[in-house]
Amino acid sequence: MSAARRTDKSARRAEITAAAAAVFAQRGVAATAVSDIVKAAGVAQGTFYLYFKTKDEVVLAVVEEMAVGMVAAIEAAVHASGATAVDKLLGLRDVLTSFDADAGAVDLADFMHRPENRALHDRLAEIFTPALVPLVEGIVAQGVSEGVFDVPDVSAAAWFVLGGLQSAELAGTPAAQMPAAIETATTLALRALGYQEATR
Amino acid sequence: MSAARRTDKSARRAEITAAAAAVFAQRGVAATAVSDIVKAAGVAQGTFYLYFKTKDEVVLAVVEEMAVGMVAAIEAAVHASGATAVDKLLGLRDVLTSFDADAGAVDLADFMHRPENRALHDRLAEIFTPALVPLVEGIVAQGVSEGVFDVPDVSAAAWFVLGGLQSAELAGTPAAQMPAAIETATTLALRALGYQEATR
Repeated sequence: MSAARRTDKSARRAEITAAAAAVFAQRGVAATAVSDIVKAAGVAQGTFYLYFKTKDEVVLAVVEEMAVGMVAAIEAAVHASGATAVDKLLGLRDVLTSFDADAGAVDLADFMHRPENRALHDRLAEIFTPALVPLVEGIVAQGVSEGVFDVPDVSAAAWFVLGGLQSAELAGTPAAQMPAAIETATTLALRALGYQEATR
Repeated sequence: MSAARRTDKSARRAEITAAAAAVFAQRGVAATAVSDIVKAAGVAQGTFYLYFKTKDEVVLAVVEEMAVGMVAAIEAAVHASGATAVDKLLGLRDVLTSFDADAGAVDLADFMHRPENRALHDRLAEIFTPALVPLVEGIVAQGVSEGVFDVPDVSAAAWFVLGGLQSAELAGTPAAQMPAAIETATTLALRALGYQEATR
């Protein structure tokens, strides 16, 4: 296959994935049929099946795309130059809560939390967690060097913060209530890191 | 089936499960064959297959048995009369670390953390987490009424503590290093709850 042909194929796949994401956000994942996706993408049903065997496969592609986009947005927000460690952690919180407040993401999150969609959920976590760990480790290490965090072990503290943030999900919090839950968890995480509001 | 016969069957199943647990602890799960289990249980191979279709099924039974036993031990330790909330949380930590230090449990934990044994791992979490949540909620509420914890939301704080304790597992900590990791996570959890050592 030529390079141009390959680019073409991957561009077409991305177009269908983007169209699927838009339809999922509008109608919900469960109510969307492959026929709705091909209509939105402006391709023939047969073309869809060149790229995806089933609707489940395009859902997976949408989830992967979304996870990669979320990680990129978080990295951009966190690496805002000149920010303190606390600002960066609050920036992470803001990005997480803004994603969770997005209507399309809410439906997709609820969909992924159904027991039968466990594999999809795990795939998101597989992309998300390893990307966030070094980021949070960096924030914790910066906070320690700034003298606002005080932890026995930077890596363990980073995992603890991520585990704590994930607890809202562990608790089965409905997606619509996630922003508030993440807000609460962030407050607890800052305390766990030894941060004292008064010293700010 | 008569009541006596039923008791007999379930007693026999429990005997085989207990024998399997002992052999797993001794030889490791992977190295144990059904023939080793029947030998230890003193039953015929055919008898084994009346109760379990595969070795995997008896591994699941051992895990379920262990989870129920762990929950019972934790409840007993935590409900020790007269203990303060902080003592109870440290009691929970002690039970968790003692389980993790047990050689048989270490092998079973490593076995469950293999990607292909995800279902087994999830089954343990399904028994464990719902049992621990009300327990930790009770401890947090007690600490708030004792004036040593200060949290915005008892339930969210309880989930946060559990999420934080689970982070050691999320981090892929080898079972042998789990006791130390749980120790660290407990220190962070106490701080997240607003506990100040000095006020103790």
